[in-house]
Amino acid sequence: MGIVVVGSLGLDTIETPAGRVEEVLGGSAAYFALAARRFMPVSLVAVVGEDFPSEARRKLEHPDLDLSGLEVQEGKTFRWEGVYSSDMNTRQTRRTELNVFERFRPKLHEGLRACTNVFLANIDPVLQREVLEQLQNPRLVLCDTMNYWIQGKRGALLEIMKRVRILLINEEEARELTGQAVTHRAARTLLDLGPETVIIKQGEHGAFLQSRSNLYFTCPAVPIESVVDPTGAGDTFAGGFFGALARMGRVTDRTLRAAVVYGCVMASFTVEDFGVSGLLRAERAEILRRAGAVTEMTRFSLEDTARLVR
Amino acid sequence: MGIVVVGSLGLDTIETPAGRVEEVLGGSAAYFALAARRFMPVSLVAVVGEDFPSEARRKLEHPDLDLSGLEVQEGKTFRWEGVYSSDMNTRQTRRTELNVFERFRPKLHEGLRACTNVFLANIDPVLQREVLEQLQNPRLVLCDTMNYWIQGKRGALLEIMKRVRILLINEEEARELTGQAVTHRAARTLLDLGPETVIIKQGEHGAFLQSRSNLYFTCPAVPIESVVDPTGAGDTFAGGFFGALARMGRVTDRTLRAAVVYGCVMASFTVEDFGVSGLLRAERAEILRRAGAVTEMTRFSLEDTARLVR
Repeated sequence: MGIVVVGSLGLDTIETPAGRVEEVLGGSAAYFALAARRFMPVSLVAVVGEDFPSEARRKLEHPDLDLSGLEVQEGKTFRWEGVYSSDMNTRQTRRTELNVFERFRPKLHEGLRACTNVFLANIDPVLQREVLEQLQNPRLVLCDTMNYWIQGKRGALLEIMKRVRILLINEEEARELTGQAVTHRAARTLLDLGPETVIIKQGEHGAFLQSRSNLYFTCPAVPIESVVDPTGAGDTFAGGFFGALARMGRVTDRTLRAAVVYGCVMASFTVEDFGVSGLLRAERAEILRRAGAVTEMTRFSLEDTARLVR
Repeated sequence: MGIVVVGSLGLDTIETPAGRVEEVLGGSAAYFALAARRFMPVSLVAVVGEDFPSEARRKLEHPDLDLSGLEVQEGKTFRWEGVYSSDMNTRQTRRTELNVFERFRPKLHEGLRACTNVFLANIDPVLQREVLEQLQNPRLVLCDTMNYWIQGKRGALLEIMKRVRILLINEEEARELTGQAVTHRAARTLLDLGPETVIIKQGEHGAFLQSRSNLYFTCPAVPIESVVDPTGAGDTFAGGFFGALARMGRVTDRTLRAAVVYGCVMASFTVEDFGVSGLLRAERAEILRRAGAVTEMTRFSLEDTARLVR
């Protein structure tokens, strides 16, 4: 039994200081699935149009990536175009064409309904709820969201949060949703809304996790020689995190910590190239090497330092 | 033998979302000295005017804080007024009155010239050089700077960097000085300009250290219940870092890592209250408790996780 991800698939046109690509495979479900399948089999539930290129589809094809839930509908595939600022910390959307994604009503076929691990990627919280209702026993539910739903579907978002075990959200969105300016207070406020654990994505500053059991864990981003395209880094983090966590089979402080590290490690591959190219090239040995690098860059010993303080 | 700090002392008027204080003790040398003296004796070299209140001076008085290098000059004390944004991540300067600080030419008396540990706080790089020239054997030189000098005295700043062992700089300034958008690349570029080690301060995201020996170490900020006033956090970090490092007596990867942790710990006291109030209240037991908390929030084990990755 693997992980079901329900999210978007699309064709992205991306401009960053490093260059420009047109109509490359993108969408939250793509990044998540390609990262999570390094740890566990993944079933993808999404929709594309009849124009979805076979080249894009081939990037998803893999023995550990079940595409039986990928609908092809009459019409055009979802398209997005964005341009990043010179430091790549902000981006502007130039164009969003929902196309077939506008009418997306995720339907899980019989084979997927018994799955207990589910990632509700950044889609309408009403659809996220519909997905949960189709699952027989959704035990480990990870959910993402974005400012669009915080502003437009706040009620539905608050409803879904009550049914989610782990919430994934970025720093600005956490502040916006809670009205708390200090991020780690925002995280604690989010815990009161339902989830047992909240993970705050902080871009180039990494991520931190806050759980109701009072686990507070921070993890830096893996430093990258040259950042080419940050698109999908958050969804890749989600894939690495959830893949590793589900694979470890238990949710404990120890497994949560290690899973956050794998989330940061996987995201570092995505930002190294446009679209999913960096992620597709990630080799097992390099994944393990970067996980070891995170250990090196965070470890310290205070042994015998108590005497230092007056 | 302790640490000599050369920097500013002043009276700050500060407005943050948490409130407002008027003419409280401030300046880089004050924050640094009050943090560093928790680890090592500190000698302060600075200038104030005849109006410097005895109440402000009393906050500095301590057996481990030598004020013999504190000049009182005819005229008024340096004053600064600033107001912080609602998330406290940016601030605007409303008023700067240099007063006696404008004519400050630091003179180290005979007793201080043999000191080997020196912190050149954020002052004119020309004055920083004059300080170095008065020291007989400045072995461990830590230097701070700011955008004002990057823009106005770039040449002198580049000169001083060649004579500095450890450079302390914040994220935006590192980018501005190097023209590198990715912070950790900026850090490596700074190493080419002279310092053996660069520490990048990242505000609420903590700090990281990059050395020419390829040590890369990140440390998160200690999460604080309620941030009241970020003024002086960077100089407090410098004091905690340098105090701990000088106290350990050797510069190695191990001592550098631990010193960064103490820098983050000390800074967490400063932001808890206006001016130096939080720092003055820091108790030894609480300093050690927070250092232990940093261990808790960064530790993880990847033991046996290699099997997770496909």
